[in-house]
Amino acid sequence: MSQADFGRLEIELAEVEMPGLMSCRTEFGPSQPFKGARITGSLHMTIQTAVLIETLTALGAEVRWCSCNIFSTQDHAAAAIARDSAAVFAWKGETLQEYWWCTERALDWGPGGGPDLIVDDGGDATLLIHEGVKAEEIFEKTGKLPDPASTDNAEFQIVLTIIRDGLKTDPKRYHKMKSRLVGVSEETTTGVKRLYQMESSGSLLFPAINVNDSVTKSKFDNLYGCRHSLPDGLMRATDVMIAGKVAVVCGYGDVGKGCAAALKQAGSRVIVTEIDPICALQALMEGIPVLTLEDVVAEADIFVTTTGNKDIIMVDDMKKMKNNAIVCNIGHFDNEIDMLGLENYPGVKRITIKPQTDRWVFPETNSGIIVLAEGRLMNLGCATGHPSFVMSCSFTNQVIAQLELWTEKASGKYEKKVYVLPKHLDEKVAALHLGKLGAKLTKLSKDQADYINVPVEGPYKPAQYRY
Amino acid sequence: MSQADFGRLEIELAEVEMPGLMSCRTEFGPSQPFKGARITGSLHMTIQTAVLIETLTALGAEVRWCSCNIFSTQDHAAAAIARDSAAVFAWKGETLQEYWWCTERALDWGPGGGPDLIVDDGGDATLLIHEGVKAEEIFEKTGKLPDPASTDNAEFQIVLTIIRDGLKTDPKRYHKMKSRLVGVSEETTTGVKRLYQMESSGSLLFPAINVNDSVTKSKFDNLYGCRHSLPDGLMRATDVMIAGKVAVVCGYGDVGKGCAAALKQAGSRVIVTEIDPICALQALMEGIPVLTLEDVVAEADIFVTTTGNKDIIMVDDMKKMKNNAIVCNIGHFDNEIDMLGLENYPGVKRITIKPQTDRWVFPETNSGIIVLAEGRLMNLGCATGHPSFVMSCSFTNQVIAQLELWTEKASGKYEKKVYVLPKHLDEKVAALHLGKLGAKLTKLSKDQADYINVPVEGPYKPAQYRY
Amino acid sequence: MSQADFGRLEIELAEVEMPGLMSCRTEFGPSQPFKGARITGSLHMTIQTAVLIETLTALGAEVRWCSCNIFSTQDHAAAAIARDSAAVFAWKGETLQEYWWCTERALDWGPGGGPDLIVDDGGDATLLIHEGVKAEEIFEKTGKLPDPASTDNAEFQIVLTIIRDGLKTDPKRYHKMKSRLVGVSEETTTGVKRLYQMESSGSLLFPAINVNDSVTKSKFDNLYGCRHSLPDGLMRATDVMIAGKVAVVCGYGDVGKGCAAALKQAGSRVIVTEIDPICALQALMEGIPVLTLEDVVAEADIFVTTTGNKDIIMVDDMKKMKNNAIVCNIGHFDNEIDMLGLENYPGVKRITIKPQTDRWVFPETNSGIIVLAEGRLMNLGCATGHPSFVMSCSFTNQVIAQLELWTEKASGKYEKKVYVLPKHLDEKVAALHLGKLGAKLTKLSKDQADYINVPVEGPYKPAQYRY
Amino acid sequence: MSQADFGRLEIELAEVEMPGLMSCRTEFGPSQPFKGARITGSLHMTIQTAVLIETLTALGAEVRWCSCNIFSTQDHAAAAIARDSAAVFAWKGETLQEYWWCTERALDWGPGGGPDLIVDDGGDATLLIHEGVKAEEIFEKTGKLPDPASTDNAEFQIVLTIIRDGLKTDPKRYHKMKSRLVGVSEETTTGVKRLYQMESSGSLLFPAINVNDSVTKSKFDNLYGCRHSLPDGLMRATDVMIAGKVAVVCGYGDVGKGCAAALKQAGSRVIVTEIDPICALQALMEGIPVLTLEDVVAEADIFVTTTGNKDIIMVDDMKKMKNNAIVCNIGHFDNEIDMLGLENYPGVKRITIKPQTDRWVFPETNSGIIVLAEGRLMNLGCATGHPSFVMSCSFTNQVIAQLELWTEKASGKYEKKVYVLPKHLDEKVAALHLGKLGAKLTKLSKDQADYINVPVEGPYKPAQYRY
Repeated sequence: MSQADFGRLEIELAEVEMPGLMSCRTEFGPSQPFKGARITGSLHMTIQTAVLIETLTALGAEVRWCSCNIFSTQDHAAAAIARDSAAVFAWKGETLQEYWWCTERALDWGPGGGPDLIVDDGGDATLLIHEGVKAEEIFEKTGKLPDPASTDNAEFQIVLTIIRDGLKTDPKRYHKMKSRLVGVSEETTTGVKRLYQMESSGSLLFPAINVNDSVTKSKFDNLYGCRHSLPDGLMRATDVMIAGKVAVVCGYGDVGKGCAAALKQAGSRVIVTEIDPICALQALMEGIPVLTLEDVVAEADIFVTTTGNKDIIMVDDMKKMKNNAIVCNIGHFDNEIDMLGLENYPGVKRITIKPQTDRWVFPETNSGIIVLAEGRLMNLGCATGHPSFVMSCSFTNQVIAQLELWTEKASGKYEKKVYVLPKHLDEKVAALHLGKLGAKLTKLSKDQADYINVPVEGPYKPAQYRY
Repeated sequence: MSQADFGRLEIELAEVEMPGLMSCRTEFGPSQPFKGARITGSLHMTIQTAVLIETLTALGAEVRWCSCNIFSTQDHAAAAIARDSAAVFAWKGETLQEYWWCTERALDWGPGGGPDLIVDDGGDATLLIHEGVKAEEIFEKTGKLPDPASTDNAEFQIVLTIIRDGLKTDPKRYHKMKSRLVGVSEETTTGVKRLYQMESSGSLLFPAINVNDSVTKSKFDNLYGCRHSLPDGLMRATDVMIAGKVAVVCGYGDVGKGCAAALKQAGSRVIVTEIDPICALQALMEGIPVLTLEDVVAEADIFVTTTGNKDIIMVDDMKKMKNNAIVCNIGHFDNEIDMLGLENYPGVKRITIKPQTDRWVFPETNSGIIVLAEGRLMNLGCATGHPSFVMSCSFTNQVIAQLELWTEKASGKYEKKVYVLPKHLDEKVAALHLGKLGAKLTKLSKDQADYINVPVEGPYKPAQYRY
Repeated sequence: MSQADFGRLEIELAEVEMPGLMSCRTEFGPSQPFKGARITGSLHMTIQTAVLIETLTALGAEVRWCSCNIFSTQDHAAAAIARDSAAVFAWKGETLQEYWWCTERALDWGPGGGPDLIVDDGGDATLLIHEGVKAEEIFEKTGKLPDPASTDNAEFQIVLTIIRDGLKTDPKRYHKMKSRLVGVSEETTTGVKRLYQMESSGSLLFPAINVNDSVTKSKFDNLYGCRHSLPDGLMRATDVMIAGKVAVVCGYGDVGKGCAAALKQAGSRVIVTEIDPICALQALMEGIPVLTLEDVVAEADIFVTTTGNKDIIMVDDMKKMKNNAIVCNIGHFDNEIDMLGLENYPGVKRITIKPQTDRWVFPETNSGIIVLAEGRLMNLGCATGHPSFVMSCSFTNQVIAQLELWTEKASGKYEKKVYVLPKHLDEKVAALHLGKLGAKLTKLSKDQADYINVPVEGPYKPAQYRY
Repeated sequence: MSQADFGRLEIELAEVEMPGLMSCRTEFGPSQPFKGARITGSLHMTIQTAVLIETLTALGAEVRWCSCNIFSTQDHAAAAIARDSAAVFAWKGETLQEYWWCTERALDWGPGGGPDLIVDDGGDATLLIHEGVKAEEIFEKTGKLPDPASTDNAEFQIVLTIIRDGLKTDPKRYHKMKSRLVGVSEETTTGVKRLYQMESSGSLLFPAINVNDSVTKSKFDNLYGCRHSLPDGLMRATDVMIAGKVAVVCGYGDVGKGCAAALKQAGSRVIVTEIDPICALQALMEGIPVLTLEDVVAEADIFVTTTGNKDIIMVDDMKKMKNNAIVCNIGHFDNEIDMLGLENYPGVKRITIKPQTDRWVFPETNSGIIVLAEGRLMNLGCATGHPSFVMSCSFTNQVIAQLELWTEKASGKYEKKVYVLPKHLDEKVAALHLGKLGAKLTKLSKDQADYINVPVEGPYKPAQYRY
């Protein structure tokens, strides 16, 4: 709590950098549209998130929050929010056990059921409810409790344990949540992928808005956010000179594009690995060679995973790397890098330089590699995540998505499906961020608007436009 | 014809740079899928187009061709094709009258009706047929011939004249074309916009494939093609030093992004004008200010229009510009710059430095501006258009689109609507271009593919993915 | 001392990044060339400096060290060196009083006089000896002690006080230092400027080697070091998004070029202020406008001083800035920004966000600016200075300069003048850093070397070559 | 002559882009300082040179001109000058025989001896006089005429023939030139190297000003000029897409830096070859790998020589290249590429695509490479050389150098040595080019100027400053 004052000072600085959120407070605050709404958030508990939370409360919501990553909480942000605005269950350096306990706490609004709305990032809050409901159904039919031993996945064992223990005290806990829930707005590619899978298998329990695929989210936060925070994380963790080095970026999606741009501009020679020929051709057009990890594993100095897939850099790859090669991940989950393989490698030695910066030394070669943030999101583990301005774009989408869900809760507009925000709202989010940067838009004349067949006030592009 | 040998030499060089088209010849040539098909093309008659035409003929087609711009024909390319492969109606520096005569000639396959397939760029061949059919219907019902005097638009007067004269000799000419036509594949943003308007108004007469919105077209040709050919055109036309200058790019879509990137990298200070807040915010994130034309008209040295809209730079703007400011357009049509206003400005003096490079001097100030390619596509008028490699991406999409239309002509797969090529074909086009650049793709394991829920062999991205 | 282990771990990482220094250990270590030499260093006590110190001791020297900036010490580096290798007088956040006490301590080798050699950065150790000798001469002639009240400059008052107090106990203290001293090697532009002034006024007391003007120093550390450490400092201190912002860089010398490049690449719109028309024209050729501070003071978001001059940003400028504009300095001394004017501004309020990051609020507007590192070197105050690799270039020059001075101490090669290292040594420093980055040099044939009139093994360029 | 009007139009455009030269006309024109001076120039006869020539005549000089490269003349520029201003001996596509005939003509001012002043580029005019004087001395002593058969070098045989034939008609021809000559100002690195060799061997016959090493020449024209004109030449000659290609730049001096920057920005993967470790380390810091030609000869698509040395790319290298690899030179002389080896390769076939663009096919592989401008300066052979603005910097130095030599002809200020222009003139050249780009300089206060020990009005930097 001693850090709350520091957190408040940084929140005040961030507010100046987050014009979209502050505009929401001005536009919607007076009418208190979230009056009566309970919002649970599972999203990195940073300074920027603090401004989001206080925007939700400024619009009338009650809020409970947890982080969606064990390392991403900024303790001073959490302290300020906990003191001033909302219940927070998050600290930097949680164990996995603690992490899921926090998630469960943030969903627990007491006897009246769970939250009305969820702000999710990566989908863990959504997952817990879906798994809970599934387990309760099985229990109701068969009396069988979930068995943590039924899975190899250490993290999923914890999830099952929590659900099992919950079942013992209240066998309808997650059903009550489900019935109260109006919907979820999901922040990131990984969580969105899960939602579409649930939608297509028919198992999605409530409406979802895919915030990630707003243009003002995925083409800004993922791209420009990572362009900023990747070098930030590298420099804070290792102080290594990026210029002159060979850097491998695994994946050339929006995140990979941002990372590759940052590394290239800082003077390193970037190599991209890709599975998708279109993204590969984009890299080539920017002067970036596309090779396989195998081709370059022994020569590169820095490795960054950005794929959203698993098993990208395995322990056998790491063994072949140069001494003090840096290995890190900026994708949502920590399974891009084979941390398990590394930890279990016979005779491997872990030397912690400082928190989130470990040197792992292989016994055969006495040569080491440096792993950041234990394979988790390095920009949040080793630095402070994306800067406020770009998060203002993302989070303004979140506020608008939450407003949509809440305002339309009774109208039937949103079914148990995944939705993207309409383009005029996407354009509005962008418009709210132009003034801060001194930009002036050109206005279409009626005649011009007719000529290209759009309304004068937008939206200006067809749905499939790629930007 | 004396230029045919030179054209042939350049065609041979281009073939080495167009791996997608050459792969089509290898893959499809033996089975002669276009056997019996008549294809009319209306698309800039350049060296790259020559390789496209000879790919179509290598697959069995008969071809007739015209250009879609009065300045864009490369005469040596036209000569080589005319001598060796297909009927060509195109030369550099046509009058508008000649232009539409060429279009009409390319569509005229004699008594058996028109072409089976159209390759269109900007939609003029498609327009002529639609207007022709419309006029024939009116004529049939009312006996009334189209009246060129009914429009102010000089170019449309020519279109109506051609149709009127045609009606006199064969009142079913365009109806016969329509019935024979299997479909059109359209190359560019502007033509696609027209097609969607016809689709939504129900007036589209045959199936259309929107090639422009293949990722391997719009995100490559429009972006990287213009990044190459804009400075090429500027340098050939004016030899002006780009470094140090202030350059205004009107529009920050794919074309504008390519132009802005090129100008920035060459050392000029770029300013963007935009109507769309999302594109504006993208410019800002790249360090490019967004202002209105009015703000900067008196201070900039170079103006480029890329909007696809009309009336972007008016004669009143041009009057305010610095002496020898350069004004050019790289959008499809020439109405982005108010050439009519300029030509009709009282006392204005036109000094032709060399073909496609004119200095226009205003009487009040004795100060002049330099207009490239008379306001038409400056990269085709003043240089040689996009380079072969990137056109290979676009044109491989064209070949695949034509194959789709022709192969499925009897299946009913394509109705009178506008279609985009499926993603696996888009990815295939990209894949055909990787080897030439020495790239190696990473292969997904089955396990990884399942994890992200895609087939091992692709397609890898959802339809709405933006790249 | 508890931080010594952490310091040692980071020193070991840095050694891998500092091939020039490690090569010196290998090449010269066995012969112990510094046997018997006492070296005093006054240079930022960072991890990289630790590797320098241990290179000097590995070559046989005894070393005492202080920092040359009150904020630049990394305490864990100081702790490791103090425990393992040399006497250290430095910690992060010294007062000015403490700073000069440290300098005096580092020069005090006990009864036998001072050091044999000085490694100086900014020239404060050199200044203290010169002022000390001057005061002793006056005292000897007139009996007059230096009077701190004779100057307005708060820092110089401290210097005079130290000398005065020293004089009371030993009136020959600085004369003894002078006689023992073989020479100084100076690290930075500012210190070098002082040395040349002393040389030209005839007051220089011992030989000096200007390390700053080795190409492998000024064109690397100043340029590429700042390109790395400026954004590092900005991000650690403020987390502000650099993209989209307007940034003013005062001065476009090597440091300014590095800063401008970093800011531009990160997506901000950079404006340069310059007095020198040549440097101004260089900025313009890179697409960077050159304006005066006055022109842009009210519109920019970030201000960086890099001039090596004083009074660059005054309190009256700061009053005109936008709320939360960031003001920082990366030049050697803290007088580029008018900190005194700011501190004394009536009613100004200082809010410390965190150490080295202060918000100063003006009473009239209630609007604040953010000042980093109290106007001192922000890359050392807010981040960790330049990265190891580029410092290896600079410090290898230092080792070679110290070796030159020591080896030639009896030969008369170096008089009381300022020298630059010969070009073949400069090229050698570069060559020692190529292998780490995987580079391979081309070898001249004898025939080619004769053709361009250079030795096969170099040096390859005339003295005046600018790189 | 029919092209003179076109030349005049382009000269008028260029004048607007050459503020330094136009300022010279304004400042010095009225006093006619060159009254009575005969100036011979041997420098690429382009539009920009035309503006230089007319600046010299505007200041009172009589001028005779030839080009210094067989391909670099722009015929319309030559025609306009010949018609309006000076005697010109130059056309595009001279034979070597014609080239030296032109040089001899330009030096021949009739019975009164040669020119008073020479503007030289590469030093051929200077060479001819020096060789002529040498031959005349031998002839006077021994009666022996120079023997063209005494050398293998085809070009030098021509030089000797011209001198021999001249000797027959006037055995004092070059001695008369020598006695009249006040001095030469030399434009380029290569010519300067020759001058320093003559100075150090004591054979220099008249004073020389090294214009190349003015900062406003070598750091602008060489760097930014080539950054512009290299891609211009590539695009005009081959239309090849630069993006995605692998490009090798041999040499990373000022010219190489400009070329590498241009290729990198256009999206190619650049590799540098270097002999100098300092330049190599600079390339690495910009993210450019440094390898040997051997390492990459079989994989690269584009090769550019920029070294100023000879035998950089030999026929054996060319044989190993990919089909249609592009080979070109942008250094002053054509001996960087082994054209002789290529021409004499048994069975090699030359296919001229268009003038200055040849495909050479090796018989063993039937694979070809594309050589630009027959190995000569490709930016002048295939495009129009550097743009006006940057040449204005170079040529303003030329005018100032010529003024210095002429004004001081009687003062003895300049001996038979090589001089660089003083820094304040260098700064003046830069200052004359700022206004056109809208720049505003900051003014030093007296106090600040004293603090850094420079005059308020400059010069601001020490002689050895590198920029």
